[in-house]
Amino acid sequence: MAKTLVFGHKNPDTDSITSAIVYAYLKNQTGHGAEAVRLGDVTEETAYALEQFNVEAPREISSVAGETQTVILVDHNERQQSADGIEDVQILEVIDHHRIANFETEAPLYYRAEPVGCTATILLKLFKEKQVDIPKNMAGLMLSAIISDSLLFKSPTCTDEDRQAAKELEAIAGVNAEEYGLALLKAGADVSQKSIDD
Amino acid sequence: MAKTLVFGHKNPDTDSITSAIVYAYLKNQTGHGAEAVRLGDVTEETAYALEQFNVEAPREISSVAGETQTVILVDHNERQQSADGIEDVQILEVIDHHRIANFETEAPLYYRAEPVGCTATILLKLFKEKQVDIPKNMAGLMLSAIISDSLLFKSPTCTDEDRQAAKELEAIAGVNAEEYGLALLKAGADVSQKSIDD
Ligand SMILES: [Mn+2]
Ligand SMILES: [Mn+2]
Ligand SMILES: [Mn+2]
Ligand SMILES: [Mn+2]
Repeated sequence: MAKTLVFGHKNPDTDSITSAIVYAYLKNQTGHGAEAVRLGDVTEETAYALEQFNVEAPREISSVAGETQTVILVDHNERQQSADGIEDVQILEVIDHHRIANFETEAPLYYRAEPVGCTATILLKLFKEKQVDIPKNMAGLMLSAIISDSLLFKSPTCTDEDRQAAKELEAIAGVNAEEYGLALLKAGADVSQKSIDD
Repeated sequence: MAKTLVFGHKNPDTDSITSAIVYAYLKNQTGHGAEAVRLGDVTEETAYALEQFNVEAPREISSVAGETQTVILVDHNERQQSADGIEDVQILEVIDHHRIANFETEAPLYYRAEPVGCTATILLKLFKEKQVDIPKNMAGLMLSAIISDSLLFKSPTCTDEDRQAAKELEAIAGVNAEEYGLALLKAGADVSQKSIDD
C-alpha cells in the first residue's frame, strides 16, 4: 500500500515544509508509514534551515492523484491551498493553526488545530504526548518554523506557547535562537531583495 | 463578561449532555469561566446517568443570541446540528469525534477531533494532558457517554481507545461497567418501548 503523504500548503513557507518532514518522522516513529512531500518550491529561507540541520527537501508533487489514497495536511486545511486531487483521497489527519474554512470530510479524522503561531508548536506537544524523543535535527526544523512564522517572536500571532516551545527546541537543537533566527530570516530576506533588484 | 457556553448537538444524546458538563468542569478547573447548556430534552437514558452520579442537567437554551459571545462545541460541528445563532458568536473550541462538514470559522481555534467512538474518550485525554484530577461523578458521566455511544462496546464505531478509557473511568467512578451499562441502556430502552406502546 502506498504511504500516507504529509504536506503543507501551496507556495510552501518554512512551517509547511518542515512540519511535513517532522510530522512524517513522528508518524514513522509511531508505526505509520508516511512520506513528506511539498506542493511548491523551497524558499531560500527554508533551504537555509534544511542545510543547517542536514535534512533533504521533500520531493515535490502537484497532485495527489495516483500517488496515494491517504494524506495528512499540516499548516493548512482550506481546499484551495491544498494539493490538486485532494477531494479524491482520504484526509486522515490535519495539524494546523489556522481558521477552518472550505474543509469537509466523509469520515471522522484526527484534527488538531490550536490557536498558536506555528504548526511546529503543536508538533512539539505531539512528540511529548506520544513520548517520542526529538532528534536534534527535527528540533532544529521545528525551531526554524517558529522563528519563520513569528518573525523571530515579533509577530502579533506569536503566543507564549510558541515562545516556550522555541526555548525547549533551542536547547535540543543546540543553537542560539536569536542568532540562528536572524541568520535564517536574513537568508530569506536576501532573496526578496534579489527578486526586487532583478 | 458572559461565560463561554459549552454544548452538544440538538436532540442531545448522553454524550452531548455529559460531555458539555464534563468539559465545562475541566475549563473551570483550568481557569476559564464556562457553563454547560443543552439544546433539547434530556432523554431517560441521560436522566438515569445524571441521577446515578448526582449531577444536575444543564439548563436548556435554543439560541445563543443574547446569551454569550463565545461558545465551545462538543460532540458535533455541523452548523445545522448546533444552536440557532451560532453564526453570530465566536467558536473558541470544538471537541468532537465526527466527520467535519458545514463548519467554518473567522479565526483560529482549538479544534480537537479524533476518530474514536465517543467525545468522552477525548475528554479523558484532555484531563490527563492538563493534569486535572477526575472526580468520581465526572468519571461516571464520561463512562456513561462511552457506554451509550458504543452500545456497551458493541458498536462498530467503538475503538480500543474507547474500551481502554472505559476501563480507567470504571475504576474512578466505582461502578462495574457491564452491570451499570446494562442498567443505563435499559433506562433508555424502557422509554422507547413506552413510546411505541403509548
Ligand atoms: Mn504556512
Ligand atoms: Mn504556519
Ligand atoms: Mn452524539
Ligand atoms: Mn458522541
